[in-house]
Amino acid sequence: MAVTIDRASSARRIEADLETVSGPDYTRSSTAISRYSYTPEYANTVRFFAEALEQLGYRASLDPVGNLIARNRPDGVPTFGIGSHCDSNRNGGKYDGTLGVVAALELCRLESELGLDLPLQVVVPIEEEGSGFGHTMLGSAIIAQATTEELLRSLPALDDGEPFWAHAEAAGFEPARWRECGNALDQMLGWMELHIEQGRLLQDAETPIGIVDAIVGIVHADVRFTGSADHAGSTPMDIRRDAGAEAARLTVNIFDLAKASLSGVVATVGEYELDPGLINVVPGAARLSLDVRGPDSDEIDEIIGRALADAEASASAHGLQIEHSERFRVMPTPMDDTVIAALDAAAGQAGVRHMTMRSGSCHDSMHIARNVPGAMVFVPCRDGISHSPLEHAETADAALGVEIMLNALLSLASGSESQDRKQARSA
Amino acid sequence: MAVTIDRASSARRIEADLETVSGPDYTRSSTAISRYSYTPEYANTVRFFAEALEQLGYRASLDPVGNLIARNRPDGVPTFGIGSHCDSNRNGGKYDGTLGVVAALELCRLESELGLDLPLQVVVPIEEEGSGFGHTMLGSAIIAQATTEELLRSLPALDDGEPFWAHAEAAGFEPARWRECGNALDQMLGWMELHIEQGRLLQDAETPIGIVDAIVGIVHADVRFTGSADHAGSTPMDIRRDAGAEAARLTVNIFDLAKASLSGVVATVGEYELDPGLINVVPGAARLSLDVRGPDSDEIDEIIGRALADAEASASAHGLQIEHSERFRVMPTPMDDTVIAALDAAAGQAGVRHMTMRSGSCHDSMHIARNVPGAMVFVPCRDGISHSPLEHAETADAALGVEIMLNALLSLASGSESQDRKQARSA
Repeated sequence: MAVTIDRASSARRIEADLETVSGPDYTRSSTAISRYSYTPEYANTVRFFAEALEQLGYRASLDPVGNLIARNRPDGVPTFGIGSHCDSNRNGGKYDGTLGVVAALELCRLESELGLDLPLQVVVPIEEEGSGFGHTMLGSAIIAQATTEELLRSLPALDDGEPFWAHAEAAGFEPARWRECGNALDQMLGWMELHIEQGRLLQDAETPIGIVDAIVGIVHADVRFTGSADHAGSTPMDIRRDAGAEAARLTVNIFDLAKASLSGVVATVGEYELDPGLINVVPGAARLSLDVRGPDSDEIDEIIGRALADAEASASAHGLQIEHSERFRVMPTPMDDTVIAALDAAAGQAGVRHMTMRSGSCHDSMHIARNVPGAMVFVPCRDGISHSPLEHAETADAALGVEIMLNALLSLASGSESQDRKQARSA
Repeated sequence: MAVTIDRASSARRIEADLETVSGPDYTRSSTAISRYSYTPEYANTVRFFAEALEQLGYRASLDPVGNLIARNRPDGVPTFGIGSHCDSNRNGGKYDGTLGVVAALELCRLESELGLDLPLQVVVPIEEEGSGFGHTMLGSAIIAQATTEELLRSLPALDDGEPFWAHAEAAGFEPARWRECGNALDQMLGWMELHIEQGRLLQDAETPIGIVDAIVGIVHADVRFTGSADHAGSTPMDIRRDAGAEAARLTVNIFDLAKASLSGVVATVGEYELDPGLINVVPGAARLSLDVRGPDSDEIDEIIGRALADAEASASAHGLQIEHSERFRVMPTPMDDTVIAALDAAAGQAGVRHMTMRSGSCHDSMHIARNVPGAMVFVPCRDGISHSPLEHAETADAALGVEIMLNALLSLASGSESQDRKQARSA
């Protein structure tokens, strides 16, 4: 069974909802979307979605830390999970995250209007962007129990330094019951999240739908070189211990290594500091950041290891010290083949251009899809811009995504029903 | 005729003078030497030297902008010029510049004590370091008439933004008579300046004396790349327009070009900025500074030109814009062969290790040696450190330098006398 929807009508409703939650009550900035946990603007946004779902007959509640959970089935009944986040970075746009929540709401509306009898649970985790406490994907990490009480008790707010725990309590939540947040994943049959791509591949390929087959792993690291700060005029090239020269060599090298990668590793050097940073002084110290991502954890490590070994050899040959420290590591998350296949088939039925792709950015789906079969649907965003008031996506693409997700869920549901029947017969 | 001096005694006197002008009345900082024009501390320092020279029978005066001129002959009589600067950078050491003035004073003392009958003029230009008005070698530029009235009337003080002209007048000088400062070069027979090396070559070679055969030319420039600030995860390597990648490539390339230079060009990238400068964003813009120096102006331009051409080709191939702007250019200044030969012979007579070398930093001698046959004598400074309270040099090396300069002056004086006699005979 495949449904067709009035895509133009869905696009209009998505547009209307997005405009609502972009209004002055829903953002702390007059020039951007800026909302995060335990602020009135974030609470207003979650309330908008909760009330809209309650009007469709969903039971909506906030879990012990404030994640929104809304179900059209009683507790204990298996459901399919859909959703995304509706917090933003502090100078954000209308679409990152929120488009996925609006799309989930539209999917629920269509399911209800069409009487499809799909068991659904909308999940909207807090703090995906980390704008409140500097910790990305915090709500989904709590749902997945991929955090610790120690962290929750100590994690300081960016605004006032008070811990997450105290802020949650002051907002009326019960962080001491954070382990109950894991209930959201109990008997979840599958998971889908629609999100803007945050890249340019779909736009460049003039393709409205991307089906994500993996979320890349990420390593964030710092490399420091220590040499000697010498006079730019009176120090011949061959006796310099130029920390900037080593940093530049490492930069060029790791880009070359990433370009030659088989699995599509990408490497970024976004931070780069020279000390003392004066035009006429050979840099005595340098620091650069590494952001290396890819679907294959081994190849990420291989490329970083090779780049560091080359840098160590060069630094040693030139009399410099090198230090390396890892800030942060996320393992790659493969998406589920069955869910991917269902989305791919539904996109084919819908007759729209689509492609399988990888997510280069982190999403709540990383935590959820480690526990539940899941996948993501990407829609293009203009020029790849995100995390900016300039962010733009087409609500028509989101409507297409909703149609594809809805049909994929129907197909998964009938598959699980027939499996249930099979199991019942064989029992 | 060659004299020998009591080097230990000279070293002690140099040490004592340096300690005097490192006292609290002579610096604006309690942790460093910090003195510059039109401050009480600078005036005290100049007065110390003026009075010491007056005690030797010199007529000492400050010219219309405050340069100290002290002569042991009446105006109009040809003299040899010696000297250096006694201002400092704002967080400076005891030796940069001031050691050369103290050495000149010691040379005058010895000349007087030994009754050598050398015609001498000590010159101590203001603002070599530019700490007062951000313009290096300002006093010697005024002496050499290598500036403009417009600049002098407008150049703002770093402390209060008021122009040089007003500060000079408030201190009791007559900047309107700045053209008379050129008189210091009238009938100057030759010029010598002793200075710390500000590099490590003498220390590494365990050699106490360097004879400078050229002061390098300098080009200061900025290169800016503009690409696209993209998401570090969702932008494959092959579609990036990474401004940092181009900046790193240019850095590595210009170092390689400098290393292959025939004339000993040195290249430094001391400033390096990425925008937005975040670990997880491909840099959309980058700026780096270039400091390129060498004795051969053509090779400096050739290396910069080649590096920029390569960078333009690479930027263009990757879809980036590149801009290049020159901040500042100083042509190389060759020293005078006769003066170099006299210093070399005197160093040989003194029986000390010495080497011919180039100055990689700028000095007042650049302005003076374009008008008068001149050369410089370098003494080692510990680990090449200058412009820092950590700066250190051995006064014993300075005493050696004084002996060598004194004998070189005697040899030049007898040479010019014999030439005078020759001319007199042939007349």
